[in-house]
Amino acid sequence: MKIVMAQHNYTVGDIAGNLEKILGAIHYYANTADLIVFSELCITGYYPKDLLGRESLITEQDKALTTIQEATQAIAGGVIIGAVERNAFAGKPFFNALLLIENGQILYRYHKQLLPTYGVFDEARHFQPGTKPGVFEFRGWRLGFLVCEDAWEDPDNPLYLSDPVAQLENINLDAVISINASPCNVGKHKQRYAQVREIAQRCQASTLYVNQVGGIDDLVFDGGSIAYNRAGICVGHAPLYEEGDQLVDLDAPLSVDVVLPDSITMIAEQLKLGLQDYCRKTGFRRVVIGCSGGIDSAVTLAIAAWALGAENVIAITMPSQYSSAGSVDDSIALCDNLGVKLATAPIGPAFDLLRQSYEKAFGEESSPLAQENLQARIRGLLLMAYSNSKGTLVLSSGNKSELAVGYCTLYGDMSGGLSLLGDVYKLQVYALARYLNNRVFKRKVIPNAIIEKAPSAELAPDQKDSDVLPPYNQLDSILKIYLEADLLAEDELEGLQRLADKVAPEEVKRIHALVDRNEYKRKQAAPVIRVNRRAFGVDRQIPITARMTLLYNSTSRKA
Amino acid sequence: MKIVMAQHNYTVGDIAGNLEKILGAIHYYANTADLIVFSELCITGYYPKDLLGRESLITEQDKALTTIQEATQAIAGGVIIGAVERNAFAGKPFFNALLLIENGQILYRYHKQLLPTYGVFDEARHFQPGTKPGVFEFRGWRLGFLVCEDAWEDPDNPLYLSDPVAQLENINLDAVISINASPCNVGKHKQRYAQVREIAQRCQASTLYVNQVGGIDDLVFDGGSIAYNRAGICVGHAPLYEEGDQLVDLDAPLSVDVVLPDSITMIAEQLKLGLQDYCRKTGFRRVVIGCSGGIDSAVTLAIAAWALGAENVIAITMPSQYSSAGSVDDSIALCDNLGVKLATAPIGPAFDLLRQSYEKAFGEESSPLAQENLQARIRGLLLMAYSNSKGTLVLSSGNKSELAVGYCTLYGDMSGGLSLLGDVYKLQVYALARYLNNRVFKRKVIPNAIIEKAPSAELAPDQKDSDVLPPYNQLDSILKIYLEADLLAEDELEGLQRLADKVAPEEVKRIHALVDRNEYKRKQAAPVIRVNRRAFGVDRQIPITARMTLLYNSTSRKA
Repeated sequence: MKIVMAQHNYTVGDIAGNLEKILGAIHYYANTADLIVFSELCITGYYPKDLLGRESLITEQDKALTTIQEATQAIAGGVIIGAVERNAFAGKPFFNALLLIENGQILYRYHKQLLPTYGVFDEARHFQPGTKPGVFEFRGWRLGFLVCEDAWEDPDNPLYLSDPVAQLENINLDAVISINASPCNVGKHKQRYAQVREIAQRCQASTLYVNQVGGIDDLVFDGGSIAYNRAGICVGHAPLYEEGDQLVDLDAPLSVDVVLPDSITMIAEQLKLGLQDYCRKTGFRRVVIGCSGGIDSAVTLAIAAWALGAENVIAITMPSQYSSAGSVDDSIALCDNLGVKLATAPIGPAFDLLRQSYEKAFGEESSPLAQENLQARIRGLLLMAYSNSKGTLVLSSGNKSELAVGYCTLYGDMSGGLSLLGDVYKLQVYALARYLNNRVFKRKVIPNAIIEKAPSAELAPDQKDSDVLPPYNQLDSILKIYLEADLLAEDELEGLQRLADKVAPEEVKRIHALVDRNEYKRKQAAPVIRVNRRAFGVDRQIPITARMTLLYNSTSRKA
Repeated sequence: MKIVMAQHNYTVGDIAGNLEKILGAIHYYANTADLIVFSELCITGYYPKDLLGRESLITEQDKALTTIQEATQAIAGGVIIGAVERNAFAGKPFFNALLLIENGQILYRYHKQLLPTYGVFDEARHFQPGTKPGVFEFRGWRLGFLVCEDAWEDPDNPLYLSDPVAQLENINLDAVISINASPCNVGKHKQRYAQVREIAQRCQASTLYVNQVGGIDDLVFDGGSIAYNRAGICVGHAPLYEEGDQLVDLDAPLSVDVVLPDSITMIAEQLKLGLQDYCRKTGFRRVVIGCSGGIDSAVTLAIAAWALGAENVIAITMPSQYSSAGSVDDSIALCDNLGVKLATAPIGPAFDLLRQSYEKAFGEESSPLAQENLQARIRGLLLMAYSNSKGTLVLSSGNKSELAVGYCTLYGDMSGGLSLLGDVYKLQVYALARYLNNRVFKRKVIPNAIIEKAPSAELAPDQKDSDVLPPYNQLDSILKIYLEADLLAEDELEGLQRLADKVAPEEVKRIHALVDRNEYKRKQAAPVIRVNRRAFGVDRQIPITARMTLLYNSTSRKA
């Protein structure tokens, strides 16, 4: 049996565009495949969220489905596809369905049983869980079916009351087919491939895992569809971070090496694709970035130039009286290296004038904090003026460590349609800088001066991040434990704890309090491309008005 | 049997403060009540969201619960309380529990069966549903129990697979006790009281509905705890929008009239309490508001003065060359009437300077759109400078109609920690202005000139909202249908449709497209106090990168 894993980049709601990709694969493999397998909810794109409440999304999907059914009349094999199905009975209005179609007919339908409703997932909001195992005999092959989360129940720590994988054990299946829309994050590849391999062994059947690829708002789906045979040998692997079909011949399987990217490669690829798709899907061709001469904006610029082409990136340096001489010089060198156009817009005169306006209006000087933020906000205002004038997207370049402790200005450096590094810890930003120089551009596009200078917001005389924050290796450890402890492996957690333990307990508590106190800023932050295990945004939902004094310094291993 | 409905304003995470309120009621009714009933999840406050993942929240709650148990040893009656309970078995880590405590012992525990996961609710994220009906005999009284959503299953259009109310029918109950954390919106009072009354009649038992009161971020819980006897007569009613216990003697019930507030009263009270609690719970005493001379900022100022006291409100008028003479004069009259201090900070010089900076940096003028936004952003920047200098909260004053079509500036007039009118349609803003003058202040604090002038952003010469938008009565109808149709009664929908039908179909489609295209702005908007049936924010989740061309003009009656 020859099965094609069809891995596409879908756009949510773009039924016509998604249909075109699906029909393309159906025609291309018309005579070569017994089964063409598409990913979860591929006609609507995953995840439509509350667009599921629009009647037209479902009717347009159903029309496309009819077209797909018709297309199967002209091909040799069958098609497996993910689709929204209406629930005519009690419960939520829809099922998240897998359909097996042959010669125009839907031969079999399976409804996803486990609906992830945690982290970035919210499927119980719209879907009713299925209650039956997915098993069907197709052309003499006994097939088992899973939809994404169905594959992930942990028998040792069960989150659900049933285990769809266990339902497929010991029933003599020939193959298990899992359709997915699984976003990626640090550690996910290893975890996911181990899981698919384990299913192949538990079910004693070749297991094919088909994923979508592409960025949808904050999430990046990495593709990397994969097949393992019952012995746990990989027999098919579609590319990571790009579209690509993979035909697997289960009668004559070829062993394939699985090479996993290291975590910095994965973060870089994820940010690149996330940025490309955010721009493409929202209709932006060009981006504009404030260039401070610091590491965050340098990495943001370099990734943007890599992802979109240097000609589609504009940098603006906006020095003030507190900017070091190096800030502008380093920005010039960086943009020269990248081939990115750099504009200069000094903010000194506007800063002076607005401070005076403030004094005149209120009869006293604005506070030092207000003056720091004022500079950042004038810069945000100029970036937005450029964006409004030219139709470019502003990329904000703050990192996760800053966003966590609120070391950033709302409506200032937080301005932008998308935050490229908002889920990247400061130490990961440094690693990205090295990766971009060594592996992507293969030359020092980001100058040493930028990589080596002490981090500073340059909003006050001789200001350094280290004036108010512990060294970043310690800060990042404290933050990662506070934000993600329940999702980390024991050994990683221990390593982080050793670093965090170098900081006084009162200081750790202060940092936890900073994280909680700055929830209000993050509620108004630009969407952040998710790369770590828990990003700010829907992945972490904290009330602003909560009182958390008693709750610092506490993480749970379960919830 | 004497039952106290204890209606308090809890703060999420403030275990010590919440405990104090609970113990206060226990001591106060020590000798007079057979049962003291508290609301859903009252020890942690509803809703803790992902704070439920912090081990310390649960351990601190459990300590408080032990203290409550001890307190019951000294009183004559029992206590019913809502609490988070751990789930030791398969499924989500917690149950949303109702506990019946007497003389130090937990006599009975009931686990909420229906977990709302739609609109603003997300309980399936953290809780496992209970599977057993809530029935227990206490001191010879046969009691049935419900927790909030348990009471809301619609047998004609079932959203769940079980109906906890049906479980309590025909089993000879003496009373049904429902503990709740139910936020309010337009139409909710009538709907809720009809529902409680119907339960009393269906179960043929006195039914007591206990709600929490107070603002938690975007949601306002209105209290209004109520009791109906089996004949459907109201026998107890706690106040709306304030704390207040209500003792109900089921052996000698007194008939109570239920007077429902009209929808504008309800919106006004909701905004007042929402603002008060947002400030109190985040630690702000004072607010600052940009005063344009228009209706939105006038209503925002008046509500703030009503809610917080005029002495805690600062207005800033920030005229430009496009501001009408009336803008400043009307602002002065308004602030005089309210007793609010008004500062003046003209933005003309900064506007000119920043336009010049832009030209110098980029070699060409900024676009007309950029220049409009520039003015709004200079104003936002001055408000934030005041906020940062003085520790005041910026209230943004944009209304829902503007926010819907994107007729507002990100980082400009959208700046602020809280959006008071972000869920109030423009016509409702006018109704609020009349209500504030006639019913709250009982004099014309908002001058006629402000109420009668044609709406304008005053960002370009002779600009009027009507240049680019249909009249607000038509626009609001189109928007309300697009945003809330599935939640409206048939007759209201028909009335709106008649108004919307006056607008050309292409124009309606353009407005729908504007709503969808401005999703990115709303993702970065300040939290909005929810008053209508569906607010922007978690209540309405739409992907930014979705393509929706085919999906306009479509609403579903179900999802």
